[in-house]
Amino acid sequence: MKWIRCSHQNRTFYGTLENDRVHEVSGSPFEQYEKTDRVHALADVQIEVPVIPRTFYCVGLNYVKHIGTEGRSIPAQPDVGYRANNALIAHGQDVVMPADATKVQYEGELVVVIGKQAKNLSREEARSCIFGYTIGNDVSERVWQKSDRTFWRAKNTDTFKPMGPFIETDPKLEGMETVVSVNGKESMRFDTGDMLFGIDEFISTMSRYLTLYPGDVIWMGTDGHSPDLQPGDVVDVSITGLGVLSNRFVREG
Amino acid sequence: MKWIRCSHQNRTFYGTLENDRVHEVSGSPFEQYEKTDRVHALADVQIEVPVIPRTFYCVGLNYVKHIGTEGRSIPAQPDVGYRANNALIAHGQDVVMPADATKVQYEGELVVVIGKQAKNLSREEARSCIFGYTIGNDVSERVWQKSDRTFWRAKNTDTFKPMGPFIETDPKLEGMETVVSVNGKESMRFDTGDMLFGIDEFISTMSRYLTLYPGDVIWMGTDGHSPDLQPGDVVDVSITGLGVLSNRFVREG
Repeated sequence: MKWIRCSHQNRTFYGTLENDRVHEVSGSPFEQYEKTDRVHALADVQIEVPVIPRTFYCVGLNYVKHIGTEGRSIPAQPDVGYRANNALIAHGQDVVMPADATKVQYEGELVVVIGKQAKNLSREEARSCIFGYTIGNDVSERVWQKSDRTFWRAKNTDTFKPMGPFIETDPKLEGMETVVSVNGKESMRFDTGDMLFGIDEFISTMSRYLTLYPGDVIWMGTDGHSPDLQPGDVVDVSITGLGVLSNRFVREG
Repeated sequence: MKWIRCSHQNRTFYGTLENDRVHEVSGSPFEQYEKTDRVHALADVQIEVPVIPRTFYCVGLNYVKHIGTEGRSIPAQPDVGYRANNALIAHGQDVVMPADATKVQYEGELVVVIGKQAKNLSREEARSCIFGYTIGNDVSERVWQKSDRTFWRAKNTDTFKPMGPFIETDPKLEGMETVVSVNGKESMRFDTGDMLFGIDEFISTMSRYLTLYPGDVIWMGTDGHSPDLQPGDVVDVSITGLGVLSNRFVREG
């Protein structure tokens, strides 16, 4: 099932997506919801960020080739990181590169969306708290990533975290591929499941110390090395079964 | 004016605090609110975390003595960090030390609470977006802080982020002191304003790249060096004009 969050005539709502039609619900799949009679053509609504997380987790250095391009050593344990809600934008919205951003790159990532409150899950139990999956683009400015003590502007500048377009509750994780295209030309392709530490291991380790809540997201990291993006570039991140997250990059001002 | 968030008979609400009486409002001071006729004795309500932030900012290494105890060099620029909402607890709630946590310390901090959406503020304009101020205790496990790549469990384990008890909208920032007591005995005292980078500088620098939203919080860092805390210890963080944030530390299980 595909869940989508969208807005139409100044209202924002959740719905299920079937054959390019949005079947609106009242409420939220993360709390309570009821079906309504309202159906919208997907082309008539504006797609919104699929969920504003309570906590925005993001895994770094989780694919071996990417770790090499970052000049980092392979992590010994699954230490999760964080991103910030100010930076979230939806499918179709523009990534705005600040005037002083000189080396902006994409990172296409699988996003795990939590659906149930969870603490102390074993690896075997880990998936029981998952609501579904979507796509994230962990846009990064590499000069700031090196010069600053934290990732605050390198990864959390406004608009640097596209997420969407919808949440698929039952994708086939086996054989999943992540493909990134720039201006319609394939730029990167990798096995989504080729992670150093997998979803079950992260959720089990994290939930030993912290409670996961409905609506929390965990971005699972990326592989490979992005080219430097230019104003006007359109980046499409597609993952098998999860659709395409497409965003144009523009210069500030 | 003092704003407090509290619960009573299964309802959570905001109110203004005057002479130990809570004057309940409907809505929120961060959106819209209206006064109500309901007044509660402070002793009759449960104090809640004063705000669940959209983004939870926290400044590291912002007081010179603390930087020394961390064995770090003095930062050249105000790079903000992050903490996680799962870890928030209110005044009076217990900090639970996991069974394998061996070196848990306090960090008493001034917290800036944002009230207005803000982007590209100058230093002179910075305070125009501030709603008020409260107290935070940035509880930290120092072994994990060194062993892990990120602060995920060192600083974001459940219950490691006490915040409160109320938000004061008009404190006197000049001459403010932060005093931390353990089991009623003074353990630390420092000038709250003795920061390497001040509030105006952080807000101005941050808002160049990111939008601040109502309810966001910025924890401003701490000074000095905490002793290792033991199960049963009660830590009180008091800041001039902002009251006392008191929490007991207990062992898991």
